[in-house]
Amino acid sequence: MTLADTSTTAPDLIARRAVGRSLEAPFYTSRDFFDLDIAAIFGAHWIFVATDAELPEPGDYRSVALGPHSVIIVRDDDANLRSFHNVCRHRGSRVLDQERGSVGNIVCGYHKWTYGLDGTLLHAPSQPPDFDPACFGLKPVHVRSVAGLVFVCLAEQPPTDFVDVAGRIEPYLLPHRLREAKVAAQVDLVEEGNWKLAMENNRECYHCDGHPELLRSFFPTYGYTEDNLPPRLRPAHERYLRVDAELRQTCEQLGLPYQLIEELDTRTTGFRIQRDPLDLAGESFTADGTAACRRLLGDFPTPRLGHLSLHLQPNAWFHFVSDHAITFSALPLAPDRTLLRATWLVHPEAVPGVDYDPDTLLKVWTATNEQDAELVARAQRGVSSPAYEPGPYAPTEYQVEAFCNWYITRLRAHLRR
Amino acid sequence: MTLADTSTTAPDLIARRAVGRSLEAPFYTSRDFFDLDIAAIFGAHWIFVATDAELPEPGDYRSVALGPHSVIIVRDDDANLRSFHNVCRHRGSRVLDQERGSVGNIVCGYHKWTYGLDGTLLHAPSQPPDFDPACFGLKPVHVRSVAGLVFVCLAEQPPTDFVDVAGRIEPYLLPHRLREAKVAAQVDLVEEGNWKLAMENNRECYHCDGHPELLRSFFPTYGYTEDNLPPRLRPAHERYLRVDAELRQTCEQLGLPYQLIEELDTRTTGFRIQRDPLDLAGESFTADGTAACRRLLGDFPTPRLGHLSLHLQPNAWFHFVSDHAITFSALPLAPDRTLLRATWLVHPEAVPGVDYDPDTLLKVWTATNEQDAELVARAQRGVSSPAYEPGPYAPTEYQVEAFCNWYITRLRAHLRR
Amino acid sequence: MTLADTSTTAPDLIARRAVGRSLEAPFYTSRDFFDLDIAAIFGAHWIFVATDAELPEPGDYRSVALGPHSVIIVRDDDANLRSFHNVCRHRGSRVLDQERGSVGNIVCGYHKWTYGLDGTLLHAPSQPPDFDPACFGLKPVHVRSVAGLVFVCLAEQPPTDFVDVAGRIEPYLLPHRLREAKVAAQVDLVEEGNWKLAMENNRECYHCDGHPELLRSFFPTYGYTEDNLPPRLRPAHERYLRVDAELRQTCEQLGLPYQLIEELDTRTTGFRIQRDPLDLAGESFTADGTAACRRLLGDFPTPRLGHLSLHLQPNAWFHFVSDHAITFSALPLAPDRTLLRATWLVHPEAVPGVDYDPDTLLKVWTATNEQDAELVARAQRGVSSPAYEPGPYAPTEYQVEAFCNWYITRLRAHLRR
Repeated sequence: MTLADTSTTAPDLIARRAVGRSLEAPFYTSRDFFDLDIAAIFGAHWIFVATDAELPEPGDYRSVALGPHSVIIVRDDDANLRSFHNVCRHRGSRVLDQERGSVGNIVCGYHKWTYGLDGTLLHAPSQPPDFDPACFGLKPVHVRSVAGLVFVCLAEQPPTDFVDVAGRIEPYLLPHRLREAKVAAQVDLVEEGNWKLAMENNRECYHCDGHPELLRSFFPTYGYTEDNLPPRLRPAHERYLRVDAELRQTCEQLGLPYQLIEELDTRTTGFRIQRDPLDLAGESFTADGTAACRRLLGDFPTPRLGHLSLHLQPNAWFHFVSDHAITFSALPLAPDRTLLRATWLVHPEAVPGVDYDPDTLLKVWTATNEQDAELVARAQRGVSSPAYEPGPYAPTEYQVEAFCNWYITRLRAHLRR
Repeated sequence: MTLADTSTTAPDLIARRAVGRSLEAPFYTSRDFFDLDIAAIFGAHWIFVATDAELPEPGDYRSVALGPHSVIIVRDDDANLRSFHNVCRHRGSRVLDQERGSVGNIVCGYHKWTYGLDGTLLHAPSQPPDFDPACFGLKPVHVRSVAGLVFVCLAEQPPTDFVDVAGRIEPYLLPHRLREAKVAAQVDLVEEGNWKLAMENNRECYHCDGHPELLRSFFPTYGYTEDNLPPRLRPAHERYLRVDAELRQTCEQLGLPYQLIEELDTRTTGFRIQRDPLDLAGESFTADGTAACRRLLGDFPTPRLGHLSLHLQPNAWFHFVSDHAITFSALPLAPDRTLLRATWLVHPEAVPGVDYDPDTLLKVWTATNEQDAELVARAQRGVSSPAYEPGPYAPTEYQVEAFCNWYITRLRAHLRR
Repeated sequence: MTLADTSTTAPDLIARRAVGRSLEAPFYTSRDFFDLDIAAIFGAHWIFVATDAELPEPGDYRSVALGPHSVIIVRDDDANLRSFHNVCRHRGSRVLDQERGSVGNIVCGYHKWTYGLDGTLLHAPSQPPDFDPACFGLKPVHVRSVAGLVFVCLAEQPPTDFVDVAGRIEPYLLPHRLREAKVAAQVDLVEEGNWKLAMENNRECYHCDGHPELLRSFFPTYGYTEDNLPPRLRPAHERYLRVDAELRQTCEQLGLPYQLIEELDTRTTGFRIQRDPLDLAGESFTADGTAACRRLLGDFPTPRLGHLSLHLQPNAWFHFVSDHAITFSALPLAPDRTLLRATWLVHPEAVPGVDYDPDTLLKVWTATNEQDAELVARAQRGVSSPAYEPGPYAPTEYQVEAFCNWYITRLRAHLRR
């Protein structure tokens, strides 16, 4: 007998999800859904985990936690990316215990089992004659880079439509030459909320009044249409229309694609990409909108390129401006804890203190992320109340609805299997 | 298959509870019983949450956690109390994130949904034409004040006998004029034990040797009768009888009710009220028994009024003396963690440093609460052992038995529904 | 319906355990197995909990946690050891809240119920006439000392073969006269891993490259045979053979038993005992192998006695050298947390700063334990990945296999009951 009302199962909740409304509480609070999200979402889709810039040389590696999984991404001697489960085939010890580093071979720190950069077990001391090293290579994980962004997929059969998505977004990304870029900073922030609340927070600007630093250069009209634009945003919208026309002209001249593609919930690899203008100087995410770094990415002839914005399901978003790029990913730690990782990339030869002031470069999004962490924690506390019931998304929150719709669609597909 | 012995269900444990003995371990340690307590006890009874003195003016609010619930209590523009679930009807965010404050309207900090002090949704930006604000008011919670003590009830149909109890206790409380009082201090203490162990600790003085500060003015004979009085307490009892006779005479003269009413486990709203003398100077909870505050509550003509003591099921107790009042509540945080909140009230015009020394005012009960926290933690650790089995309450622990009996009776009533 | 794959039950996992391989993940990570381990292993076997040296005088006591159990071990007025559950028979409070001390009677700190050193309830204040103290003595726990090592057993019927094991190991231990020894230090270390990973770590020297301090005096060939000895260890092995011959001669002269007895997984009370030489000066666990304490245990005529090593299932190991003894026990705190307790014993008249330098005495094993804690944490993180699968133990890890085999055998015996 159950004392609390736990008779509603996860499949019931998935089946009855109301379109246009936030999810029921267990999606955000229960261990069952956390485990399901790891299996059905993070274990079955292409997940952004790093940038090529984080592993420039052969032997460079990153280890990344995807829920209970730990994944190694390493550059092999042919400069190709490889990925493996970070689990020794001997007694299961974590092989590499640091988040990043550089190695010749991959040596487990417990009993020195030694794997090549291709995962082959090269040496396991003191084994009996019938021991076959070929049976004990590191378990491989699918990995690929798209224009400098590194993705892994834990599934045996990764979603095939990723190839198409990669082909659609590469023309937008390649001019920023991220593969050549270097990491200026990486900041991890633990948000006290479910990863989906972190994503829902990202997918709308309905709450942007809480981001004074961001709103200097970012148009607060984001997500609104002529139909639902609040009157107070009308002047900003007029300004947006004017600089958007300019931006389109610049893009045409430079051959930069800028058209919106929005397929957030109509495919397995949901995504959205668009180049949009910025306010004030229109160059970058700074207090006056001017570039934060003198050296531009990709040797662009002008810094005034707005921001190329990429949203990827399930857990990543990106802003590419002329002078730097920022990647964001929301990595689930627990039902009510999420790691938000932000990485700033600049021109490979940009010198801190000379070409850019790191404080200026990081300021807007560091402040914005911290503000969002407060909001996500507050949302988590709220939905944990038994009095919570799903409420309606406003039209300007259509991307939040698209996220939830994509998510529910993927869970249903998982349960059918 | 279950490996540990979890075959005994909560209803089994409730059904077989042995009268006169402490509860079986899962009542104190399991998540199941914690959830049941929230639903059947804290979600279904009138719970003391604040004093009128904490919200004197329109717009003043408190937010209080009752397990996973967060409840707002706010004074509206007509000076009436209102209470709501602290959950935004949009995406469930906690509306007010502070424990206390003062507001014009109740504005959610996430997307600025704006509610009136009556809970009506006044403004939700950028909604479609068919959006009906009337469907999205804050969910109301029953609230009422009894002589300056504020209670909420989360149930749709609150227990009706509360009206009768309020009527019975008001004549005792009103002379202390708590509605006009002011808060001198509020101290929160986290006890590392189940809320019921905190209550059991409160409901007997069998352990009072552990409270040297309290025992200066508090008679250690509390809870004993002529039949079971230990010989060593005989002198104190003689003293008690003498000053009790005096106190009764004073009460008769002043028209203060003092008779014991004890209906702890014979009704839904179990309670006990009585005026009892204090030792030494007989005025207050201080080292020498003299008043801690020169300004007396309710303009009493004498400080020598003993203490009016009120016990309420499930989780509150109170001491009203001539110069101040103290309220106590045990708020469940987890199966093994409880918030003990104590609030000191004094005459509205009493000036700290002039009319009272805050250290002197707080000293006895702060020390006593900390001592009790140690004992509750120790009890929690003990009952967590598989070797624990319920033991017998002594006659002087009859109020502990009454608490458990009330509690079990209420659980049985809940399970019948 | 289960969303994650939890359809494999604990009995299934126990039944299908693959010989020669590490255990499947739930053995190390799940609450179910933690509870089962407490019931079937720690609740059913003789567990090493202290040394006689920790309770030399009547009234001296230790309290020790065995999972959720707390056990008192006390020396009674006849100098015999007694053991009880540390749970008051009144309302279940922990009776003694300190880890060690000295008492006349055992008095519960809550309501002063007073028990004799034999567990009899001597005094419970203010009870009714029909209260029978004989029904409320402390619950006894089996306890016995073997040559100065104190064991308890929580089972009603302790394993009977312990008598035989005690008789087999006493001739090895008695010459070290541990009953007369004194405690030089006790160090507790919390390892972030399952207790079985702590044990597996202890039962092999395949990882000993990670112990530079230990390997000064400890032969790295431990656990290897001529068949599987790595070539790089050949010189050490030659050295070992040479000093082992010397050691055997010394032992013969002094009448010290040294032959290996190894019955790790062939009986209920699995054990292994052997005297082995040490490297360098061959006397003790120090940087140069010389004794750390001038006063030798048992008035040995020479310090050059190697180390007498005792392994006991489920959770203890010991090293007895001429100048001191060290005991180790791995006490489960949670599925992923284990207390490692190490105790150093020296001659009762050895004076710190005169006969021994405490830093020197503690250095090697303190460093080794800290290194092992890192490895155990790393192993715990690794086996928590869904990608982990049990891998093969190398021949030199045969004692790890014996530990797992003993453990699985005991679980199967438990489930049959």
